Amino acid sequence: MLLEALYHVPRDKWAYAYDSRTIHLRVRTKKNDVNSVVAMTGDKYDWKSTYFEITMDKAASDEMFDYWEAEVLPKYKRLSYAFRITAGTETTYMLDSGIYHYCPAPTGGYYEFPYIHEIDVITVPEWAQDAIFYQIIPERFANGDPSNDPEVTDPWGGQPKMDNFFGGDLKGVLDHLNDLADLGINAIYFTPLFKSPSNHKYDTVDYKQVDPHFGTNALLKEVVEACHAKGIRVMLDAVFNHCSEQFPPFQDVLKNGEKSKYKDWFHVNKFPARIENGIATYDTFGFYGNMPKFNTANPEVKQYLLDVAEYWIREIKLDGWRLDVANEVDHHFWRDFRTVVKAVNPEAYIVGEVWSDSLSWLSGDQFDSVMNYPFAEKVLEFFNGGMDGATFSNRMSSLLMRYPQQTNEVVFNMLCSHDTPRLLTRVGGDKRKQKLAVVFLFTYMGTPCIFYGDEVGITGDVDPDCRKCMIWEQNKQDRELYDFYKMMIHLRKKNKALREGRFRFLKADPGNPCIIYERANADIHFTVWMNNTGQKQTLSHPMVTTDWRDALSDEQVPPVNGVMNITLDAYGYRILYRKIAK
Amino acid sequence: MLLEALYHVPRDKWAYAYDSRTIHLRVRTKKNDVNSVVAMTGDKYDWKSTYFEITMDKAASDEMFDYWEAEVLPKYKRLSYAFRITAGTETTYMLDSGIYHYCPAPTGGYYEFPYIHEIDVITVPEWAQDAIFYQIIPERFANGDPSNDPEVTDPWGGQPKMDNFFGGDLKGVLDHLNDLADLGINAIYFTPLFKSPSNHKYDTVDYKQVDPHFGTNALLKEVVEACHAKGIRVMLDAVFNHCSEQFPPFQDVLKNGEKSKYKDWFHVNKFPARIENGIATYDTFGFYGNMPKFNTANPEVKQYLLDVAEYWIREIKLDGWRLDVANEVDHHFWRDFRTVVKAVNPEAYIVGEVWSDSLSWLSGDQFDSVMNYPFAEKVLEFFNGGMDGATFSNRMSSLLMRYPQQTNEVVFNMLCSHDTPRLLTRVGGDKRKQKLAVVFLFTYMGTPCIFYGDEVGITGDVDPDCRKCMIWEQNKQDRELYDFYKMMIHLRKKNKALREGRFRFLKADPGNPCIIYERANADIHFTVWMNNTGQKQTLSHPMVTTDWRDALSDEQVPPVNGVMNITLDAYGYRILYRKIAK
Repeated sequence: MLLEALYHVPRDKWAYAYDSRTIHLRVRTKKNDVNSVVAMTGDKYDWKSTYFEITMDKAASDEMFDYWEAEVLPKYKRLSYAFRITAGTETTYMLDSGIYHYCPAPTGGYYEFPYIHEIDVITVPEWAQDAIFYQIIPERFANGDPSNDPEVTDPWGGQPKMDNFFGGDLKGVLDHLNDLADLGINAIYFTPLFKSPSNHKYDTVDYKQVDPHFGTNALLKEVVEACHAKGIRVMLDAVFNHCSEQFPPFQDVLKNGEKSKYKDWFHVNKFPARIENGIATYDTFGFYGNMPKFNTANPEVKQYLLDVAEYWIREIKLDGWRLDVANEVDHHFWRDFRTVVKAVNPEAYIVGEVWSDSLSWLSGDQFDSVMNYPFAEKVLEFFNGGMDGATFSNRMSSLLMRYPQQTNEVVFNMLCSHDTPRLLTRVGGDKRKQKLAVVFLFTYMGTPCIFYGDEVGITGDVDPDCRKCMIWEQNKQDRELYDFYKMMIHLRKKNKALREGRFRFLKADPGNPCIIYERANADIHFTVWMNNTGQKQTLSHPMVTTDWRDALSDEQVPPVNGVMNITLDAYGYRILYRKIAK
Repeated sequence: MLLEALYHVPRDKWAYAYDSRTIHLRVRTKKNDVNSVVAMTGDKYDWKSTYFEITMDKAASDEMFDYWEAEVLPKYKRLSYAFRITAGTETTYMLDSGIYHYCPAPTGGYYEFPYIHEIDVITVPEWAQDAIFYQIIPERFANGDPSNDPEVTDPWGGQPKMDNFFGGDLKGVLDHLNDLADLGINAIYFTPLFKSPSNHKYDTVDYKQVDPHFGTNALLKEVVEACHAKGIRVMLDAVFNHCSEQFPPFQDVLKNGEKSKYKDWFHVNKFPARIENGIATYDTFGFYGNMPKFNTANPEVKQYLLDVAEYWIREIKLDGWRLDVANEVDHHFWRDFRTVVKAVNPEAYIVGEVWSDSLSWLSGDQFDSVMNYPFAEKVLEFFNGGMDGATFSNRMSSLLMRYPQQTNEVVFNMLCSHDTPRLLTRVGGDKRKQKLAVVFLFTYMGTPCIFYGDEVGITGDVDPDCRKCMIWEQNKQDRELYDFYKMMIHLRKKNKALREGRFRFLKADPGNPCIIYERANADIHFTVWMNNTGQKQTLSHPMVTTDWRDALSDEQVPPVNGVMNITLDAYGYRILYRKIAK
């Protein structure tokens, strides 16, 4: 047994309360190195009468490790525990106090989950698991009201530049709500809507005013009401890391320097606040002098921004906030943000923009979710031929093991965004690969999000190219692609198993990029078959029951002699299901 | 290179801000497996011009791993980083996105410490690093006022039982402050003082009243003032996990059941609140029906207890709170507790009672420190002959690597407490071993605490035996032991190097229980030599400079031909020092 590979700590994703009665434990061992892991559990105040052993499941494996999981329901909410790990004839005991070749007495040194406090349980909004998001850049979605266009507005459909405008607005969104309802999405994520000089509006001038080029506050309220009437939730973009240089308090600092009453609203390292040799004397987002960073530790700033957060939830019954550059804002701020937001709307969905490991924000006290860029990276690399099935399985397992289960269930999965090239461009323009990636997105764990226009075949390289205008003329849309998205959305919405079910790879082999995986809850069992190659392939897998049907056509697809053989065109897929007998 | 042994996560003790400018990074590798670890650092918004490589130090080693550390001062407070690890001709790159055999471009996938926020930096009270604590059980320290003795009071010095009283009180403490000042301690930790039916008072009836058998609130104030006048700080015991069944709100629940306005102050699982078949229908501390557990998530309870915490800090200028059964109280409570306490006294020292891995409470938002029971366990096992020098070094390193550096500097180190057998008893009554353990305590990193009476030779097995009355007759005290404690306290107080200096083992070999270690700051370099065997031994170690002196006698102790030879009696020690030339 490779002892160096063993890992467990009595906290974060390794030991957490899944709900007010249930603790999840995870242990890591070297891949294919041990036969069994047993959680030895009890209440330390009466070990003898509460002692209980639980054989852990091998829940995931990545390139180097196996991950074992167990669910524990301690009788008195308190849990002490150790692990007994067996490899052949070798038995090892893993405790808080170290690793032993004998079983230490339960008088100390065991791991502890001292008490399950409901208030400390990581809770996420239930609806987020059922949501299918659609990300809209308002400036590029639809121009419903030419009267509010910027002074210089390029013709709709022109080439996006860093600083040009096309006149998209909220009236445009309102006009097209039926289209979104037809597509089937049930949640919208809007990039920033508030007054700002830029086309992206990530540099806010007035946090309580909808940008005049987009419409009015009243119109926003109308849009949200119309969305809600159609069962569509709305999430806005909270840009609280920094503001525009035109934000009045910053203008005051520029004008009055150290005498400004706003001097501590920002991180001014040296007065006057200005650009010296190309570098601002104040902290900024990146090195953009026009985006001064807020001092969110200043109680006045915090109060100001939390008031904004609360205002829009109350004012328009907002369903969630996406937090821009969330990892560069302090943890104290986000804790109070959560408290304020959840007090007004306990079901608000809080999604942080964090591109790397985000566990520091996901302990239940800050965010519900993060934008899952690592998911996009790995999925696209796989469908672009960059890895075999085994590697893909390893990478996805590794991502799942980053976070607690309830977080995985609502992590914000997308394949592209306003900050990356578009999906179709990322798969080299091959719509078969695009579809495979989308099938994966909609049959995987987590909250899926579509970037506006991907469903009609819009392409685009990195910003600004990825921010093209939406195509509305049906003859210019790829309607076959649109129908495919619609079908996948419908499939996911109709089947709880695709949202809450257990995920497992059935086939993910070295040297072979074809995969089979399953999702299942107590009612329905799905298997998804993917030919991730340029040649026709037949995938085979043993299947015990014969009651399989195609999830899209509903035709019967029986195995032959206990083996299911599925023949797929190049980059083809097939989704099967069966109802689970009760 | 054993890749399974590599470990780093971009958070908690592996990547933390030491102060508002400095980030500490730690990486784990298999023991003696790699030659070097280099931190590749930069600002992700301008990687090229900010790129900087830092060779990491091997800061600690335990049985299986080496731990590498580096200090990084990012120019713009933002840090992205990866590690380059070299073993022979093999080079590996370790990133947030995985392990590579080539160097991935810095366009994503690197670890991130997104921004150093001063408000998120883990800060600890500066004085705690200089403190030498003395733990007092008031009922057992001195009976200064027989008029307030309990009705049945046993003669001073009798055998402690779970429920007998000896009449100790605050007047007794006041009377003996000169003795404590003579000993040299500069901080007292009092076990609970508030009104309670028990002798230990861990079951509080009135949180705002000093127990009448101990004195009055006014007397407590007088004691604290007198302590402060002598430069002695005072820490009280906050028993906020549970109360006494006689606590009026709980009495109200017993009486009025579901109709009680206090029904949600506790965790009543089934009304009526009572004992059924030996088990309470409400949550308790352990299984003690007379200690109902508070529902600290209830805002009323929280407000009540936080008010108590604040009250005593304001009322008597309290310097710290020790938190009883701290790990069984919710994290939200402790975060607010810290906010309230630090608002009144930013230098208050908050020490949690947590016996196992405590990192969940030590991220800067909850406690400053925890009672370091694992320290006591390992030190006593070593001086009782339970391990060799190499193993001891491994165990101590492992403990140091549990927490960030600033926490290690004020972790509450003790060798026994009211909840364990006494030090002298734990070393089999051998005062030579007691002294070795105490020398280690006072020359090691962290805040040392003496349990009252250990310094005069009191023995005692587990509770109640460890809670014997203090011995005041000088002829019954071990005055030689007392003088030894006094000397060690003086040595530590006089030398900042023993409180803040770097710690390192110089000799800690397999099969040999003798050790040499050093502590050093910029001014003074200490080496401590310990013969942890029953035979006379000569320890040798190369020494470059010749200016060593005995730290206790100040006699010169020069090395011979570059080797220092120190002959020590069985269980003997010697402490050498030299001033570091500027």
